[in-house]
Amino acid sequence: MEFDHLLADRTRVMDVNVIREILKVVSQPGMVSLAGGIPAPESFPLEIIHELTSIVIDKYGSKAFQYDPTEGFGPLRETLVDYLQLKGIKSSKEDILVASGSQGVLDAIGKILISKGDRVAVEAPTYLGALQAFTPYEPEYISLDTDNYGLIPGSLEKVLDGGGIKFIYLVPTFQNPTGRTVPLERRRKIAAIIKKYNTLLIEDDPYSSLRYRGTEIPTIKSLAPDNVVYISTLSKVFAPGLRIGFCVAPALIRKWLVIVKQGTDLHSSTFNQALAAEYICGGFLTRHLPKIIDLYRPRQEAMLAALDKYFPDNFNWSRPEGGMFIWAEGPENSDMEALYWKAVAKKVAYVPGKYFYTSRDEGIGTMRLNFTMTDEGTIDQAVSTLAEVIKKELS
Amino acid sequence: MEFDHLLADRTRVMDVNVIREILKVVSQPGMVSLAGGIPAPESFPLEIIHELTSIVIDKYGSKAFQYDPTEGFGPLRETLVDYLQLKGIKSSKEDILVASGSQGVLDAIGKILISKGDRVAVEAPTYLGALQAFTPYEPEYISLDTDNYGLIPGSLEKVLDGGGIKFIYLVPTFQNPTGRTVPLERRRKIAAIIKKYNTLLIEDDPYSSLRYRGTEIPTIKSLAPDNVVYISTLSKVFAPGLRIGFCVAPALIRKWLVIVKQGTDLHSSTFNQALAAEYICGGFLTRHLPKIIDLYRPRQEAMLAALDKYFPDNFNWSRPEGGMFIWAEGPENSDMEALYWKAVAKKVAYVPGKYFYTSRDEGIGTMRLNFTMTDEGTIDQAVSTLAEVIKKELS
Repeated sequence: MEFDHLLADRTRVMDVNVIREILKVVSQPGMVSLAGGIPAPESFPLEIIHELTSIVIDKYGSKAFQYDPTEGFGPLRETLVDYLQLKGIKSSKEDILVASGSQGVLDAIGKILISKGDRVAVEAPTYLGALQAFTPYEPEYISLDTDNYGLIPGSLEKVLDGGGIKFIYLVPTFQNPTGRTVPLERRRKIAAIIKKYNTLLIEDDPYSSLRYRGTEIPTIKSLAPDNVVYISTLSKVFAPGLRIGFCVAPALIRKWLVIVKQGTDLHSSTFNQALAAEYICGGFLTRHLPKIIDLYRPRQEAMLAALDKYFPDNFNWSRPEGGMFIWAEGPENSDMEALYWKAVAKKVAYVPGKYFYTSRDEGIGTMRLNFTMTDEGTIDQAVSTLAEVIKKELS
Repeated sequence: MEFDHLLADRTRVMDVNVIREILKVVSQPGMVSLAGGIPAPESFPLEIIHELTSIVIDKYGSKAFQYDPTEGFGPLRETLVDYLQLKGIKSSKEDILVASGSQGVLDAIGKILISKGDRVAVEAPTYLGALQAFTPYEPEYISLDTDNYGLIPGSLEKVLDGGGIKFIYLVPTFQNPTGRTVPLERRRKIAAIIKKYNTLLIEDDPYSSLRYRGTEIPTIKSLAPDNVVYISTLSKVFAPGLRIGFCVAPALIRKWLVIVKQGTDLHSSTFNQALAAEYICGGFLTRHLPKIIDLYRPRQEAMLAALDKYFPDNFNWSRPEGGMFIWAEGPENSDMEALYWKAVAKKVAYVPGKYFYTSRDEGIGTMRLNFTMTDEGTIDQAVSTLAEVIKKELS
């Protein structure tokens, strides 16, 4: 039978994920991928996980495998309070909702807040997964201007001044795709602006624990606690396959997040939440995180060094102090999607930056480079190859 | 700050879960709950799970903890093909989508199919979790009549004849809440009707593996494969806390389910899917399922015997050959919610049946009784107490 006539209106407006299509070539043999956005498998604490499974089965028994409250596994919510305290975020167990990855939080936020046509303000460029979570609820996206220091507060104020913004979505630290971090002074301005306009801001913070240099910067949540839903994840510091994300949200927002999450997946995996609880409260995270950082820091340094060494002078790129990405921008009129296919022919892949913009004519000359999945030598070689392709195609 | 003005239209129509509210008393000390809908914790194969964690870490290594395709973990999808074959359902790996519990499938179905005001046909009474999944997408529910043998085919035909039904949602085997099973002859009629009207039916089958007597009945999926999305779960035969549900769907439906699931939670837990894959393909499920059945069969027999022994003659109840529930109906004008509070005062809880109806004036005289969470002696005593309350209040 045919089913097209059965699809909901929201489904008809959904795009097939174009980025997924063009990245299919990445799995070709011999390809060096700087396109990924995922942690290195060698960063996963397999031995610790093995130990944790025994701890969890001994400590919680069948409770770790039973249905559990939608809000999250009690011991995980408790230990997250301490974890967040270290990031300067004050919370109680009741403030915290655990979800199936950050993606689960983003979906629930879209579901409770976005009616068709509602205006959601996002950075240009922004995180694609957030757009995928929000788009089925049919918002209109409003672009916020950014520079090398992330969101420009004046742009935010101007957009809010226009009125009618449902919420703002922001990744202020080591942003995906740009790697950029909003400095403290700007965060203070942003906090003041959202308080002034009595607006809700979604602060998505998956990367701040991956800091290779410099000092931690306070979250916007800590500067405007009543106006911010803070989202984070254990995907980058534990293992993404366990799908553990969480948020700290103002009470009314959290109440509705719980109600919709109940309809979406009842609750997230109890077992995985119990593993996560023991990973944090047992001190394993504190011991393991430096190993992840020691793995990624030289990779990032290798990429920055290779860009300095090989890339032409008319390119600019970000120099983040952490995270997983570097953002490069070519000269005017350069087209990084056209270049993509030339690079792929030389067995190097990246993500053309235009896919991270909500309007289709922006970011044509940009690219996102990932350094977590590849060792230093391979990074040097791949950036060298990419630079050759650039020089050949763009000169 | 206030947030009420930020809520989406769909959120404003959502109910706080009333059933959850009235069931809060169930956790009072000394309460015997026949209200639950969950497996007995002693049915969980803890030792097997411990063994499986080692197998999974050895066999799949970091792959079991990495991001994974939205469709599901390859080895699980492969072994589910064989598992479904035993239930008479022919499928290929590509037909199968794994989700975060059946609830994850139900949410994705609602998301891709339901526009505001679309008509969805459900049994009266029906499974509450399905309503919680669909309601945020703002359907109008159309009730289908049922009797002791489940859905009445004539009622289905009449509703479809009226036109405008987006899809039908059905739990044909050991239904929640009634325990009823649609016999083969009716399934054939239902299959013929949905083919005739070229309609999509969602067959939700969480319980058919929990059969204590009688012989298995073919799924509606096997009788009308092109018109049915078949949903099942490992929650009742492995462990619900792992959140592993799955569906077999026609190609176009599946394609959109994958696209929306990507926005909802990216994918379900890789680790838990790997555990599930090894649980099935390693033969553990085949060895463990009889133990679950041996645990539940005497509990169900004890409940049926106690109902025969204690309940007044003007009550009727279902006599299912499996599943987790028995459905009891009192005489005309009896009110099982009023009775609920009297029963709770005597430390016995159940679910008033009216909560399983989409219209608020039905099922006033019905109750759902669960037998999986309580041992035989306690069941006998609880049913005896309940019968005393009934006799006192309804005579």
